[in-house]
Amino acid sequence: MSIEANVPVAAVDWGTSHLRIWLLDMSGAVLAERRSDEGLLTTGPDGFSAVLERHLLDMGAPAATPAIICGMAGSRQGWIEAPYVTVPAQLSDVLARAIPVPGAQRDIRIVPGMAQRSADAPDVMRGEETQLAGIADLLAAGRHVVCMPGTHSKWVDVEDGTVAGFGTWLTGELFSVLSKQSILRHAVGDPVAAVSASNKTFRHWLEQALASPGDMTSRLFKIRASTLLLDLTPQDAAAALSGLLIGTEIGSAGAQFGWKEGEIALVASGPLSDLYGAALGIAGYRVRPIDAETAVRAGLLVAARQNFGPRETRKVQA
Amino acid sequence: MSIEANVPVAAVDWGTSHLRIWLLDMSGAVLAERRSDEGLLTTGPDGFSAVLERHLLDMGAPAATPAIICGMAGSRQGWIEAPYVTVPAQLSDVLARAIPVPGAQRDIRIVPGMAQRSADAPDVMRGEETQLAGIADLLAAGRHVVCMPGTHSKWVDVEDGTVAGFGTWLTGELFSVLSKQSILRHAVGDPVAAVSASNKTFRHWLEQALASPGDMTSRLFKIRASTLLLDLTPQDAAAALSGLLIGTEIGSAGAQFGWKEGEIALVASGPLSDLYGAALGIAGYRVRPIDAETAVRAGLLVAARQNFGPRETRKVQA
Repeated sequence: MSIEANVPVAAVDWGTSHLRIWLLDMSGAVLAERRSDEGLLTTGPDGFSAVLERHLLDMGAPAATPAIICGMAGSRQGWIEAPYVTVPAQLSDVLARAIPVPGAQRDIRIVPGMAQRSADAPDVMRGEETQLAGIADLLAAGRHVVCMPGTHSKWVDVEDGTVAGFGTWLTGELFSVLSKQSILRHAVGDPVAAVSASNKTFRHWLEQALASPGDMTSRLFKIRASTLLLDLTPQDAAAALSGLLIGTEIGSAGAQFGWKEGEIALVASGPLSDLYGAALGIAGYRVRPIDAETAVRAGLLVAARQNFGPRETRKVQA
Repeated sequence: MSIEANVPVAAVDWGTSHLRIWLLDMSGAVLAERRSDEGLLTTGPDGFSAVLERHLLDMGAPAATPAIICGMAGSRQGWIEAPYVTVPAQLSDVLARAIPVPGAQRDIRIVPGMAQRSADAPDVMRGEETQLAGIADLLAAGRHVVCMPGTHSKWVDVEDGTVAGFGTWLTGELFSVLSKQSILRHAVGDPVAAVSASNKTFRHWLEQALASPGDMTSRLFKIRASTLLLDLTPQDAAAALSGLLIGTEIGSAGAQFGWKEGEIALVASGPLSDLYGAALGIAGYRVRPIDAETAVRAGLLVAARQNFGPRETRKVQA
């Protein structure tokens, strides 16, 4: 069964700690929107259906509205496992391989993540593939390096519309666990305001890390020592930690990708976009900023068209 | 007042999470010994005296027995702050600057830590200076690089008996917080047996990290990905994390010190000594193993002689 252009689709980004649902028509117009913190961590295996149906009811979605989902809901710990597509993979192919959720009262499909099945550089992503598909037009011809910062920052190497390889940097998670759980909690304090890209301490530690990303684990302790010996304030300690971790990520990724200058497509939103935009500029790159939320919504629309559109016969398992 | 050779001294290593007390005679012979987990974290500011007196009573120490203390008991959060000695500093000078604990019922002195007061590389140590003083004879002539692994690993550059500089790597603490508090807890599991130096996974990740210490934060996620894609076991995930962190430390320290080959004095005990001994060997160094506990006891004896010995007039504050 194909769906008509005026029948809405539920586009769902279901991550580890967040849930975003948009009711879209097939032209991409947003009819309704919901955001919640009912991510994978707070939604048990039996709860996905109940959570989704409650939000769709609230949003006034018709009963037959199909739903397309990306993110950690498709992981082994999620609703149903959507097997990874192995790279290299053409961006235009990945989302068409969404798998149906069996036994659901509507057509619900979860798109696959991507896996790099290399013995030396194994890696996985879930959710970012949909953002990439949403900006596939920008990545069509030539080589593009994409930076997608976050808890687990992804850097992606795209050549002529094909994901050639990617890597993950644990930057956001390191900032969180080190500032809350390590000796650095005495330096950073709690809570702190968001780190600003214009902070001079952020810039100083960023530049040091860009110059020698291999010294990160010794520089971490120097944040603590700066509190003891140089009266570093908690706000500046947070800026130092952020600059150190982001600089280490950019220095390491640039070297791994052999991409020391030129353009970086930065897929991010809000304060993280400002921070990485400034950092990549300091590192010498030209930055092409792309809003992460717009990208994922565009990718989910691509997935909806590929999976529910006229070319596709809708199969619902018994 | 000087003390006689046959009067014992209490030699105390009081760290963040441990307390060790030896009753020594002035020749260094161990008359009694106590170990406890009453470190800085579990001993409040008012508790230091009570904890020490209870142990000394248990050990049968005479009432006039003086006590010499090193470690975090001398920090701002400790019993009384013993100001840092600034490097460069002659090892033979540092411990003579112990400061008395006022109002105590016996002569109790705490040795200073050392500080590197450099705007670009601020650093501090407390406890390791005493281990270094305990092996000063081995470090007397020429240049020596000393590796002192642990929660906060110290690397120390000693030239002709003078501490020229040092650095700290957060290796042990990173292993702990990442294996317990981060996404890697799913890979490493809990509890795991100690990592063995003969584990092939340890060696593989160590060699990768030695080759490019700047990629640590991306390799961290590859441990998680190896669990998902390559069936890495929890035991091997712990070995991978250990190899990655230790290799990053050695690669970074070797580069910072400009010391890529030659001898390293390894001051460590137990399993950590085996692990770092193997790792330094793989990195191409000749390893001179030195037992950390023997070193700290020897250093405390040096401090006792310098502070309570015949050359020194004992001053007790009113």
